Amino acid sequence: MIHTDICIIGAGPVGLFAVFEAGLLKMRCHLIDALPVVGGQLAEIYPQKPIYDIPGAPAIIAEDLVNNLMKQIEEFKPGFTLGERVEALEKQDDGSYIVRTNEGTDVHCQVVVIAAGLGSFEPRKPAVEQLEYFEGKGVHYMVKKPEQFRGRNVVLAGGGDSALDWTIFLADIASRVTLVHRGDTFRGAPDSAEKVYDLAGKGKIDLILQAQVNKLGGNGVLKEVSILGNDKSITTIPTDDFIPLFGLSPKLGPIADWNLGVEKSAVIVDTFDYSTNVERIYAIGDINTYPGKLKLILCGFHEAAIMMQSAFKYVYPDQKLSFKYTTVNGVNPF
Amino acid sequence: MIHTDICIIGAGPVGLFAVFEAGLLKMRCHLIDALPVVGGQLAEIYPQKPIYDIPGAPAIIAEDLVNNLMKQIEEFKPGFTLGERVEALEKQDDGSYIVRTNEGTDVHCQVVVIAAGLGSFEPRKPAVEQLEYFEGKGVHYMVKKPEQFRGRNVVLAGGGDSALDWTIFLADIASRVTLVHRGDTFRGAPDSAEKVYDLAGKGKIDLILQAQVNKLGGNGVLKEVSILGNDKSITTIPTDDFIPLFGLSPKLGPIADWNLGVEKSAVIVDTFDYSTNVERIYAIGDINTYPGKLKLILCGFHEAAIMMQSAFKYVYPDQKLSFKYTTVNGVNPF
Ligand SMILES: Cc1cc2nc3c(=O)[nH]c(=O)nc-3n(C[C@H](O)[C@H](O)[C@H](O)COP(=O)(O)OP(=O)(O)OC[C@H]3O[C@@H](n4cnc5c(N)ncnc54)[C@H](O)[C@@H]3O)c2cc1C
Ligand SMILES: Cc1cc2nc3c(=O)[nH]c(=O)nc-3n(C[C@H](O)[C@H](O)[C@H](O)COP(=O)(O)OP(=O)(O)OC[C@H]3O[C@@H](n4cnc5c(N)ncnc54)[C@H](O)[C@@H]3O)c2cc1C
Repeated sequence: MIHTDICIIGAGPVGLFAVFEAGLLKMRCHLIDALPVVGGQLAEIYPQKPIYDIPGAPAIIAEDLVNNLMKQIEEFKPGFTLGERVEALEKQDDGSYIVRTNEGTDVHCQVVVIAAGLGSFEPRKPAVEQLEYFEGKGVHYMVKKPEQFRGRNVVLAGGGDSALDWTIFLADIASRVTLVHRGDTFRGAPDSAEKVYDLAGKGKIDLILQAQVNKLGGNGVLKEVSILGNDKSITTIPTDDFIPLFGLSPKLGPIADWNLGVEKSAVIVDTFDYSTNVERIYAIGDINTYPGKLKLILCGFHEAAIMMQSAFKYVYPDQKLSFKYTTVNGVNPF
Repeated sequence: MIHTDICIIGAGPVGLFAVFEAGLLKMRCHLIDALPVVGGQLAEIYPQKPIYDIPGAPAIIAEDLVNNLMKQIEEFKPGFTLGERVEALEKQDDGSYIVRTNEGTDVHCQVVVIAAGLGSFEPRKPAVEQLEYFEGKGVHYMVKKPEQFRGRNVVLAGGGDSALDWTIFLADIASRVTLVHRGDTFRGAPDSAEKVYDLAGKGKIDLILQAQVNKLGGNGVLKEVSILGNDKSITTIPTDDFIPLFGLSPKLGPIADWNLGVEKSAVIVDTFDYSTNVERIYAIGDINTYPGKLKLILCGFHEAAIMMQSAFKYVYPDQKLSFKYTTVNGVNPF
């Protein structure tokens, strides 16, 4: 069991900055994110694109903003559980909560902050026979720990950056890598595509274009994939792992079941303090809604600052909060 | 008469960023500030101090933040009227406004945004006989255009950075500079004090310590200052100009007379869009108040973004506002 003051669901820009505002008030945070990395939409959807409307940062690359936020919160030593999805909240008798993930991680906290953006990023699953049956038995939708593929026979599928990047990366680790792609050109970065063609040319990987994996086979664990060519040919190749990489799409998921007021897939909050209808549960950033809501990063920052002032009373019920400027008071690490 | 879409009263960080949010929606801005420089409290009170809670900017010097904001809004070419105080708003028959300064500058606009912080920075006036009588006739509380002192006889008073900095600067411009200071050490930066001692040592300026200007004399225009020593001695020296520099303090001033809802020197707004009780007049940043208000720069940024969405209908009554991410749409200059 992990113990913290505040458990933040979602490590997007807003969840990250919330750690800073909590830290100023001497409250510790633990963040949980379904993605294996921090940054939310900025990491998953547009890491290399410039954002122009971060105040005081005329044109900042999304990935740099995430790095700056990580640096800003460093002193407050937040905990992270990445690559796990929050499934359940359990209210305790004393009002505190236990937050539980799909992998059984438990976080005990006084306050829950939902900074879940558009929802947890879930893999888009291709139509492949027996796909779900082999989940956890050879089918992976993300590469969390590349080392687990060392010496194994791996089939990847997809035509975007993730498929290209992991093909290149795993070529050095796996015993055999096969990339299957429906089209004959790639959507991913041209130089990555170039590298993949090059590896295939040198016989270091197998590249199967104009084809798709349509069926999985095995006996308890994955043993082979069947590949259907656009020309209707069928090939079966032996494999240990199948990694379909067709992008992630956000799903509100379990949050919808927590008895919170929800409107159009967003959690209704009171703009006084961005609290939900359930005591000790707040919602900030893209996940919340209120009259006039704008889904902007800078708005989530404001919400995080206001929200933490309100959460203080649950963490320090006997103390009076006193508001001080950082310029005057500095930042005092834990 | 200056014509613009939006007139912003106050060029502090929040007024500046509001220009960016307006610009994204193709609305032009003109800013007016009583200070001769932009930046509000950051420029006047703590230009060299680091701010730690600007999201994504772990420790940014106040002056740098102001410069970054100026760079961010550059493409939208805002107009500036600096060193003038807004005194009056005049509603026009078509709903638009004329904003008028103490120096008679008129700005015609569709929407007025009050981003006036703690109020307009007004000079602290020392107790000097006849001081107000000679205002505009030789008494200056700020140096707006140093060139106006070329070849003149100037007496400055004060012991802080402004007094030191302007003494050094004017030493090269004025025919004679005298600095009068009550104490015998300076509150300003040690290296500035060093330079002032050095100039005095070389006879380039006159330095009168442990004394204060107590009386002004002249005939329609300033001709002399009388200086009272801490030892009760009295000296009279001829001068063309007297510049007392004892800092600035903010005053709500005329804003209190505009029929706006005001509570504890702040303008009451609706958090839906940060509008005041008067149509087409908004208030953002430190000047406004609402339940839960925090006087933080990052909160003012949020308020500016939301506010401009609401102001759009007055500038473009026939258009539908469509919200687009800067990352997707870019920033399109005027
Ligand atoms: C193409 C594009 C361009 C954009 N451009 C701009 C722009 O220029 N300016 C701007 O201000 N905004 C822009 N945005 C919007 C901006 O990205 C969002 O406002 C911002 O990401 C919201 O941050 P957040 O922290 O609230 O949520 P997110 O960034 O969505 O992060 C939420 C995180 O929570 C996680 N999560 C959700 N549910 C769970 C769960 N149950 N368990 C575990 N983890 C969970 C998700 O996996 C995700 O990582 C853009 C968005 C897109 C898609
Ligand atoms: C010592 C100190 C440390 C601080 N530290 C922090 C910090 O770490 N983090 C943080 O977020 N905030 C901090 N603040 C607060 C921060 O400076 C304010 O929140 C911020 O300046 C508000 O910006 P603003 O644009 O609303 O107003 P201001 O910066 O006050 O600017 C308002 C401008 O409007 C002008 N004005 C007003 N009335 C008129 C008029 N009638 N005519 C013409 N001009 C007018 C004024 O001259 C002024 O220049 C600190 C403040 C101080 C004093």
